[in-house]
Amino acid sequence: MLEGHDVTGLLSTKAAFPCTEASTVPRMKLLMAKSPEEQHPVKAVGWAARDSSGVLARSNSLEGQERMGHHQLSRCPGHEIVGVVTEVGDKVQKFKVGDKVGVGCLVGSCHSCENCANDLENYCPKAIQTYNGIYHDGTPMYGGYSDIMVCNESFVIRIPDNLPLDACAPLLCAGITTYSPLRYFGLDKPGMHVGVVGLGGLGHAAVKFAKAFGVKVTVISTSPNKKKEATERLGADSFLVSRDPDQMQAAMGTMDGIIDTVSAPHPLWPLIGLLKSHGKLVMVGAPEKPLDLPVFPLLMGRKIVAGSCIGGIKETQEMINFAAKHNITADIELIPMDYVNTAMERLVKANVRYRFVIDIGNTLKAA
Amino acid sequence: MLEGHDVTGLLSTKAAFPCTEASTVPRMKLLMAKSPEEQHPVKAVGWAARDSSGVLARSNSLEGQERMGHHQLSRCPGHEIVGVVTEVGDKVQKFKVGDKVGVGCLVGSCHSCENCANDLENYCPKAIQTYNGIYHDGTPMYGGYSDIMVCNESFVIRIPDNLPLDACAPLLCAGITTYSPLRYFGLDKPGMHVGVVGLGGLGHAAVKFAKAFGVKVTVISTSPNKKKEATERLGADSFLVSRDPDQMQAAMGTMDGIIDTVSAPHPLWPLIGLLKSHGKLVMVGAPEKPLDLPVFPLLMGRKIVAGSCIGGIKETQEMINFAAKHNITADIELIPMDYVNTAMERLVKANVRYRFVIDIGNTLKAA
Repeated sequence: MLEGHDVTGLLSTKAAFPCTEASTVPRMKLLMAKSPEEQHPVKAVGWAARDSSGVLARSNSLEGQERMGHHQLSRCPGHEIVGVVTEVGDKVQKFKVGDKVGVGCLVGSCHSCENCANDLENYCPKAIQTYNGIYHDGTPMYGGYSDIMVCNESFVIRIPDNLPLDACAPLLCAGITTYSPLRYFGLDKPGMHVGVVGLGGLGHAAVKFAKAFGVKVTVISTSPNKKKEATERLGADSFLVSRDPDQMQAAMGTMDGIIDTVSAPHPLWPLIGLLKSHGKLVMVGAPEKPLDLPVFPLLMGRKIVAGSCIGGIKETQEMINFAAKHNITADIELIPMDYVNTAMERLVKANVRYRFVIDIGNTLKAA
Repeated sequence: MLEGHDVTGLLSTKAAFPCTEASTVPRMKLLMAKSPEEQHPVKAVGWAARDSSGVLARSNSLEGQERMGHHQLSRCPGHEIVGVVTEVGDKVQKFKVGDKVGVGCLVGSCHSCENCANDLENYCPKAIQTYNGIYHDGTPMYGGYSDIMVCNESFVIRIPDNLPLDACAPLLCAGITTYSPLRYFGLDKPGMHVGVVGLGGLGHAAVKFAKAFGVKVTVISTSPNKKKEATERLGADSFLVSRDPDQMQAAMGTMDGIIDTVSAPHPLWPLIGLLKSHGKLVMVGAPEKPLDLPVFPLLMGRKIVAGSCIGGIKETQEMINFAAKHNITADIELIPMDYVNTAMERLVKANVRYRFVIDIGNTLKAA
């Protein structure tokens, strides 16, 4: 098996439970369906949460942990994973040893529903998440905070050569989560005006993709001090402080669409007001509690509030190819494995610009 | 001037203030823009609210009433109006004396914005409502509860010969309000499954149009006793009692779209649950207070909640032509003018199937 390199992992602010969201692996096995014994002959080493504290520590036997009912612990997290193929099963057709590849949020689906038939595995009711799920054969799924990963080739993304593995890893979730709604809701036409609410991992990816589509981008944030970052570093065309009524009033009715990345409770009516007629407010963050939806403003402008959740595998590959063409990567802070719990503490304070990526290949074994 | 016939008017449950929503006129003058004096040389007789009680009574001088600031009284209501052309201005090109015509909710717009350019006058920020608005020249607008009406031909709909004037009048608001979102949101494809929430004036029109599109229709109502009406009389394919958790559970994830006509507060999450992935919940009723919007279910199925408000003039004509082709009319109760205040009391109790229409041509003068 080949050793991986540039092995990365990712932490995010999205989950309330302090789990990390992705990682990359130094070695990746691609196997087609055989018996479970044949599929999982190799023991992996990774970092996992072993109790409800959420603190991650090294585990030598990821297969050995007990299942904990429906609400399992995030035993071994990580779902923005890149690495290099080290071994392939005999039915694998699309990849060979040495290929640079990635795995996002999904590693399985039913392959028989309408969504699967339309390359929308992300909306398959039986989609299997990269970690914390149970595979078709009953195997518990472990994420990318480990030295190897086994994955069906149908859920593996090819990483173009010009993309650095570490900085492209977050595209496998944050990237596709923002790329997909820009495309599906038609907010990818040059000359359009799109707002991006929240400048975190998702938001900064949304700005980059929207700019690459030729769209005018306005970042909408509660923090005035993010203006310089948004406009000068990320290239947004303008910046709105959502708490400034005058700024918001002046921008009313100017946007074709908005990508709202905020998971904290926040009012929708000012965002709906920013939309032109027929405009689209797309939620990609998931506030826990219902938000207030004013209906009259929706009616008066035939506006919509929508949700969107990552993307299908085909579209994820399309997104990565687009990113490669336009030199889009995430802004990351590369960290060693044993920094992960500190990183989680910083995540709670939103103290990262914009994704932590764990260098697992160079640091897992040492840790 | 020719006398009109089959003159009708309409009451609705939509407005909180007890105003009526439409009417037809016995004679209709169509004038193109001249000076205000030239445009309004004829005194009209109609019924109007003269104080905040909302009670309607006869008024001989609709032009003479005082404006009452931004929130005017519904002086002379009525916005689903049909009648016959009695006179045309010298710049009128599309209509001639004797034509059967209708006027809906709008009588003016700016003609210069993007919505106007796209035949979406209904979303023009300067759209002028048929009553209770102020025209470009400063004239207060009066609705259809009067013996004549003057209207710019750009906002007049031609009524096909095979449609009865009284039963087609409500199509000019209730009809287009449901037809337009079925078309715009792509819920008009044969074989699709569309839910209709609420079986009132809007709901029963939604059922008829959806059936004519070849769509499978399920009526969703709080009232089990409307089942027979929905399925046997209106031809809906099935009926769901929204308060029956078992019925709702069994129908989860089965609908491509829902037209929600209910203005009373009601929960959205069960309706969102009825939608398939990528399904569309379209609000055409306007609850006064914000509704709770659960975001996670939107994300997990890329679902949307949208609003829609009547339709443009071009689409209203298309809708009326479609109705004529498919013999679609509203179910109405024809009433004399002096029954109007009683009708309003019945409206409050939702005691009408499904629209009151006032026979103004035969009853206004007697009253």
